[in-house]
Amino acid sequence: MCRWAAYLGKPIYLEDIVSRPGHSLIRQSHGATRCATSVNADGFGIAWYGDRDEPGLYRDVMPAWSDPNLRSLTATVKSHLFMAHVRASTGTATSRNNCHPFAVGKWSFMHNGQFGGYDSWRRSAELLIPDDAYRHRKGATDSEALFLCALGEGLQQDPCGALARATARFEALARRRGTAPHVRLTCAFSDGVRLYAVRYASDDQAPTLYHRWSATRGGRAVVSEPLESDELDWFEVPPGTFCTFEGESVTIAPFVVQSDRLAA
Amino acid sequence: MCRWAAYLGKPIYLEDIVSRPGHSLIRQSHGATRCATSVNADGFGIAWYGDRDEPGLYRDVMPAWSDPNLRSLTATVKSHLFMAHVRASTGTATSRNNCHPFAVGKWSFMHNGQFGGYDSWRRSAELLIPDDAYRHRKGATDSEALFLCALGEGLQQDPCGALARATARFEALARRRGTAPHVRLTCAFSDGVRLYAVRYASDDQAPTLYHRWSATRGGRAVVSEPLESDELDWFEVPPGTFCTFEGESVTIAPFVVQSDRLAA
Amino acid sequence: MCRWAAYLGKPIYLEDIVSRPGHSLIRQSHGATRCATSVNADGFGIAWYGDRDEPGLYRDVMPAWSDPNLRSLTATVKSHLFMAHVRASTGTATSRNNCHPFAVGKWSFMHNGQFGGYDSWRRSAELLIPDDAYRHRKGATDSEALFLCALGEGLQQDPCGALARATARFEALARRRGTAPHVRLTCAFSDGVRLYAVRYASDDQAPTLYHRWSATRGGRAVVSEPLESDELDWFEVPPGTFCTFEGESVTIAPFVVQSDRLAA
Amino acid sequence: MCRWAAYLGKPIYLEDIVSRPGHSLIRQSHGATRCATSVNADGFGIAWYGDRDEPGLYRDVMPAWSDPNLRSLTATVKSHLFMAHVRASTGTATSRNNCHPFAVGKWSFMHNGQFGGYDSWRRSAELLIPDDAYRHRKGATDSEALFLCALGEGLQQDPCGALARATARFEALARRRGTAPHVRLTCAFSDGVRLYAVRYASDDQAPTLYHRWSATRGGRAVVSEPLESDELDWFEVPPGTFCTFEGESVTIAPFVVQSDRLAA
Repeated sequence: MCRWAAYLGKPIYLEDIVSRPGHSLIRQSHGATRCATSVNADGFGIAWYGDRDEPGLYRDVMPAWSDPNLRSLTATVKSHLFMAHVRASTGTATSRNNCHPFAVGKWSFMHNGQFGGYDSWRRSAELLIPDDAYRHRKGATDSEALFLCALGEGLQQDPCGALARATARFEALARRRGTAPHVRLTCAFSDGVRLYAVRYASDDQAPTLYHRWSATRGGRAVVSEPLESDELDWFEVPPGTFCTFEGESVTIAPFVVQSDRLAA
Repeated sequence: MCRWAAYLGKPIYLEDIVSRPGHSLIRQSHGATRCATSVNADGFGIAWYGDRDEPGLYRDVMPAWSDPNLRSLTATVKSHLFMAHVRASTGTATSRNNCHPFAVGKWSFMHNGQFGGYDSWRRSAELLIPDDAYRHRKGATDSEALFLCALGEGLQQDPCGALARATARFEALARRRGTAPHVRLTCAFSDGVRLYAVRYASDDQAPTLYHRWSATRGGRAVVSEPLESDELDWFEVPPGTFCTFEGESVTIAPFVVQSDRLAA
Repeated sequence: MCRWAAYLGKPIYLEDIVSRPGHSLIRQSHGATRCATSVNADGFGIAWYGDRDEPGLYRDVMPAWSDPNLRSLTATVKSHLFMAHVRASTGTATSRNNCHPFAVGKWSFMHNGQFGGYDSWRRSAELLIPDDAYRHRKGATDSEALFLCALGEGLQQDPCGALARATARFEALARRRGTAPHVRLTCAFSDGVRLYAVRYASDDQAPTLYHRWSATRGGRAVVSEPLESDELDWFEVPPGTFCTFEGESVTIAPFVVQSDRLAA
Repeated sequence: MCRWAAYLGKPIYLEDIVSRPGHSLIRQSHGATRCATSVNADGFGIAWYGDRDEPGLYRDVMPAWSDPNLRSLTATVKSHLFMAHVRASTGTATSRNNCHPFAVGKWSFMHNGQFGGYDSWRRSAELLIPDDAYRHRKGATDSEALFLCALGEGLQQDPCGALARATARFEALARRRGTAPHVRLTCAFSDGVRLYAVRYASDDQAPTLYHRWSATRGGRAVVSEPLESDELDWFEVPPGTFCTFEGESVTIAPFVVQSDRLAA
């Protein structure tokens, strides 16, 4: 399990989400409160959108709290749309190529959760990656494979449907050849314009997902756990929900994963 | 505060101390139980003696639990005398040069503890390093400075006295220009033949120090906290004690730090 | 193109091959003379056999010449059979998982060379990896894939034949879907008892391969270029040759790659 | 010896200097043509000014050419004033804290050159650092010490004079206790408004320094060697010269190092 935070709104310094809040992502890397692993020190990453279509990407293998590069970057770079992730490995090696966010073209993607027994069906999952996306597979994580698979399912045309289909394929593999819990997933991804987030699990233990609009800041934070403990207006996204954030608006849709037919 | 473990006895694989015990050093890097900071993920290091006078040294900046090099090394290298350390920074940067153990010639040294307000008197502490040892100062930690200062005080001829004099000088600086607690210290060091360890504090909160002879193994572990929770025969070293381990024997001496005169 | 060196014989310190000779592997990482890329600074690795069946493995992403851990390790660890590699990437990312040697169980493997247009047929190459070896694929290099494919072809029972069959499959892919030159390859691998090396190319530009028995040392070095410029008794292995080194003996066999039938 | 490049003018992507030109800094890290060491792979760094007074700082220990973070950062971040450096160590360890640029408050500093026999008088050089700057000394390089010493000499009020006085003190130490050549130096530094650069040597071998105004770009590059081989309008700064760049203007002053009196 990992922790992550994303932002969409008026440009702010990345540190305003990553390190400055009372329960910032950096603090969560030390002591997360709403997930099984309180320490998230197996690498980190940030992706941010600026003038260009492709996001900037910075990832490294040390704990987020001890990297001076990260501290300096987040104090210097402003963005209207960015993501940050601290990783607690569920088994895969700590390497830059296994750190989130992943980026392909204008798309960025990050994930918290697990697929049951992934090691035993990794190969089958990677076969779901379309040929033209395969060259972007650089690491060995389930998250990167899910992202690349979702790209192949049409993330560009139908973000919610594409991710649901990719998730269904993974869930089917987990049901057939893996272990329970089959899928637990909160992820965020973006094309540089909209920010998408989903909360889902194949059981009743979906990892938490929250968001909150700050009028002061003119922007919205989307997070795996609230950035301040004394702010009472964090909205908890219910399980099975797909969120589209654009400007000030939030659009909610059901996130329906039809793995049964696939598993048949 | 950090966690460390050392071994002296019949050659064993380093992993027998570092990663295999139920509460091994690697486990302690995740969840130490007898110190303020339960996570010790700001780098690690091992020093081991083999055929040569100088110890081997391996240090890196990632958490000990996630480094495949460390896993492989400790599964392959056998030694009759070695040290291992996981670091929780008290402020200084996470860099290899700030990771323990430190080594100069045949000597190796590692430390857990703190010197009150060290940043404000670091320069004065470094002035205590003798000229011919100064080229070995590569990082910026209090621990490296204490080690190099102790070398200058005659670690070779009088290990206990030299470390006590170096500690006294540091304590005097902490009293004059730093903050309380002035000194808390457990450290281990070796010349490749004997293993030395000390437990000391200027207040009544000396960091813990234990050792245990294993007849099965034919060797002794010296640690900041016991490696197994169900072994009842760990000997807790009392504060203000200097231990010399050689073969099966342990020699105890008072560790007397006379900082008062220096502080006058 | 990369540079590598291996040793089989009476135990010596790794530095006796890696860093001490006049044209040691470390020197070659700065200034190789017999290959296209004189700088080999995209990571390095060593694998060495000791008491256990599985080799020790140490790999990192910095240039070999600047890593104090490597310097200390090679000055401390003795082995009767080891490999060392300095990497010049032909495109794949610099990450530990892409550094040679690769190790699976008791086997270790390292490679210098290239497969023409590998990126365009990487997926097909990875499909050649047998299911039970697939979990060992951690990086994205052609070399790791070749090794895992060769394991599946029966490296254990028939080292020469298995590697030839794996190479043939890769060559067939390169002919069909890649670019010329299709295959250039010198590699070394070991099961901890014997050391194997091969020199091969699909054209007339096979990367160089040498070996030399040192009576003084009681061991043999097998290298991509000689370790001393003034030793005239380095034996240059001809292209299309598979060498088996065991004790003092060398057994030579033709390395026949039958890719034609596969490509049909 | 190292290679570096700086820029002042209309905001451009860092890659326009760092990686895109035909003989960009990244290319120079592989194959510099105007200095003794053609490979500059012992770490790198960039410092750039944005909205805030303090510059962003990104430094790491791998070769600049193989770091995907650097590639992404320089493709994403725009700045009107920035510096970039690739390092070839003259002996000091490869660690982030030894990588250029160095930054203290709004000031950044980078250096190419050497001080003769620095190891033997490092301690004396570090004694020249004023107390309040000493906490910024994190590594062990001559360059960082020179920068901190120059800050103490009044870099804020008198950039040219302060650097000349600091250089004189170092040169005096090199003459008394070091080796020839005593000083060879080209360095660049900035307060976020002006860019300063100096070329100097105690002998007749001052490292090269060039600058060029690009009307197309509306900015000036200041470099250790030209970024394009076919641009004939690079201005070579003569030895013993201090340059102040502000907007489009260049102000030249003699850089006079009076070490004789100090050495007496």
